[in-house]
Amino acid sequence: MSNSVTLYDLQLASGCTISPFVWATKYALKHKGFDIDIIPGGFTGIVERTNGFSDRVPVIVDDGHWVKDSWAIAEYLDGKYPDRPMLFEGDSMKVLTRFIDSWLWATAIRPWFTCYILDYHNLSHAHDQPYVRESRERLFLGGRRLEDVVADRDERLPLVPPQLQLFRDLLKDTPWLGGDHPNYADYRALAVFLWVGSVATTPPLPDDDPLKDWLDRCFDLYGGLGRHPGMHTLFGLQEVAEKAAA
Amino acid sequence: MSNSVTLYDLQLASGCTISPFVWATKYALKHKGFDIDIIPGGFTGIVERTNGFSDRVPVIVDDGHWVKDSWAIAEYLDGKYPDRPMLFEGDSMKVLTRFIDSWLWATAIRPWFTCYILDYHNLSHAHDQPYVRESRERLFLGGRRLEDVVADRDERLPLVPPQLQLFRDLLKDTPWLGGDHPNYADYRALAVFLWVGSVATTPPLPDDDPLKDWLDRCFDLYGGLGRHPGMHTLFGLQEVAEKAAA
Repeated sequence: MSNSVTLYDLQLASGCTISPFVWATKYALKHKGFDIDIIPGGFTGIVERTNGFSDRVPVIVDDGHWVKDSWAIAEYLDGKYPDRPMLFEGDSMKVLTRFIDSWLWATAIRPWFTCYILDYHNLSHAHDQPYVRESRERLFLGGRRLEDVVADRDERLPLVPPQLQLFRDLLKDTPWLGGDHPNYADYRALAVFLWVGSVATTPPLPDDDPLKDWLDRCFDLYGGLGRHPGMHTLFGLQEVAEKAAA
Repeated sequence: MSNSVTLYDLQLASGCTISPFVWATKYALKHKGFDIDIIPGGFTGIVERTNGFSDRVPVIVDDGHWVKDSWAIAEYLDGKYPDRPMLFEGDSMKVLTRFIDSWLWATAIRPWFTCYILDYHNLSHAHDQPYVRESRERLFLGGRRLEDVVADRDERLPLVPPQLQLFRDLLKDTPWLGGDHPNYADYRALAVFLWVGSVATTPPLPDDDPLKDWLDRCFDLYGGLGRHPGMHTLFGLQEVAEKAAA
């Protein structure tokens, strides 16, 4: 039996993963000790790539079993491989992970989306860009043009980091959301920051953000899994703001 | 060996517990299958009541062992009685419970405190009221009088329930924060609502709040532990607002 699992990725033109769901799945597979066979690809053609199995990624193929949806994949991995390090501690940790995940989406992804959606578009594969523009403008932006949505982002970006204080406070008292070691709660939260790093042509967090300690330790896991060359730095928001004011 | 644990309470004049930390401890003791010997008392005289052991409650005495601090008490109970139902599932659930707890403090207790602090004072034992007024005005209200702080609460109370939507959404997909059964994550979150119920002379939540399902099931646990006769209803905010507008 192979120790590799096939993963259908969602990538930008740089090859860097953009989807937070794929990022969480990459860390989950590494946590379980698997090598990953990446099937590259962008926003379009997913149904064709997966032979009709899914119109969304992540999708994995493990020893012939096809599984979709990041949360279902994590549960599948723990269920099938309980002898390997567990992603979930139990049902309560699952419930509470969904809470911190939904809080991070509301607090960070929602405002960052409207700051970085033009980068998100421009960094996509050229053949994905018409789909990205049309679908995002229609589904998430009320028909507004990407260029208009991001126009005032320099004023809005500094409003986000203070909203993350509860998360910063939590990480003062523990090295990982998993306790003494990272688990799926860490990967799920981390995926929010990997998503923004994949598209942030200007940094979302200040250089002295205390989140840097946890983020750097997360990026370093599994041979520096989070340090793809297409990733942008998360830190330096203050310096950019100061430079703009100078 | 007795199956009872002694608990030093923090009560209003009605005998209803006010402290969210004591509430969480009451549920924790019942979860572990213990009977509770309550030592009644209010905000003042705690050092004397506990023979110098602590200036804060909860304090428990279990088979001659004195333990203080609600979190430490919960950990003590799981550590000493692992054969009884566990309060904690593991380290990650502890970390994530601290997160949802701190979110509820920021989102609910902080605004409700400045809506209900005069009730909180008026419902206290008469001999506690000078201490409650002086300490709360000085420590938490920047020297403002309780009466001035609550003056505009009718405008502020309706702002709180919408902020709880992430918590409502979470409880759509699970009966308990513990998963299939309640655990310390439920008790910790519940304690926020028991605290407000102990002081809320006007309801904090709308009558049709979907949180009512989980709250009612929590109140019913352990023979209706949360249904003390000194407790106020949490539901009816909309009706009060409509009556005021009529």
